[in-house]
Amino acid sequence: MSEAASPPIDGILETAIYVDDLARAHAFYGDVLGLERVLDTPRMMTYDVVPAQVLLVFCRGMTREDMEASTGGVIPGHHSDGPAHFAFAISVGAYDAWVARLKTAGVAIRSEVVWPAGGKSIYFDDPDGNVVELATPGLWPNY
Amino acid sequence: MSEAASPPIDGILETAIYVDDLARAHAFYGDVLGLERVLDTPRMMTYDVVPAQVLLVFCRGMTREDMEASTGGVIPGHHSDGPAHFAFAISVGAYDAWVARLKTAGVAIRSEVVWPAGGKSIYFDDPDGNVVELATPGLWPNY
Repeated sequence: MSEAASPPIDGILETAIYVDDLARAHAFYGDVLGLERVLDTPRMMTYDVVPAQVLLVFCRGMTREDMEASTGGVIPGHHSDGPAHFAFAISVGAYDAWVARLKTAGVAIRSEVVWPAGGKSIYFDDPDGNVVELATPGLWPNY
Repeated sequence: MSEAASPPIDGILETAIYVDDLARAHAFYGDVLGLERVLDTPRMMTYDVVPAQVLLVFCRGMTREDMEASTGGVIPGHHSDGPAHFAFAISVGAYDAWVARLKTAGVAIRSEVVWPAGGKSIYFDDPDGNVVELATPGLWPNY
């Protein structure tokens, strides 16, 4: 490693999950969670979550191999099995509305947790078993 | 699904990866990429990337089972195998410095891609084979 300081990182731009059925995943991420889909191909969908934050939903098994970018250059292959985890930020004021929204949509809430700093989380599964969390501020030092 | 609008989502709070060796992962994410570690347990490390964005690095195999939160409530288990993918946002001005940083640290750059909208990406692997990307603006409609 270098002893010099690293150049700056401005944030996490892309968070990826892997699913077996893109249409089924969109019924969840697009219709229930209300995310705006901006790309929809047999290989992947992308959702514009907020500025400079994109959720990538990959069709499992279609991204193992390297592929050529349309402008040249190689997009390295990747792949993942198993029910992974990620979390969305929500406001305290939206918490109860999200609980109601999930219940209305028939999404089973697996757990609700109150954190030591006062934040609250709602855990539930997406249709592929990925563990999704909605968390209010008061969970991490930077949130 | 409900026909009503969904409550707001404020962003992606947590992005998770799974690694086999936390110390080796920290030499990469902490020392080479310069991220600030805020939690370090045998089960997981967390990095404060920017406000309200946390990178979770889980020790593969230690998160399969549900666990009790310190304040009560259940944290559902999750798990993932395989080299997944995620991306950090960097500025155009930091691009060359990142290429140099990775080379100095002995991290092999797998690919560089220029996107149709003008953004540029650097792809490289973390020590577990997860495909990490550093991307400048001009990649997605919201970035």
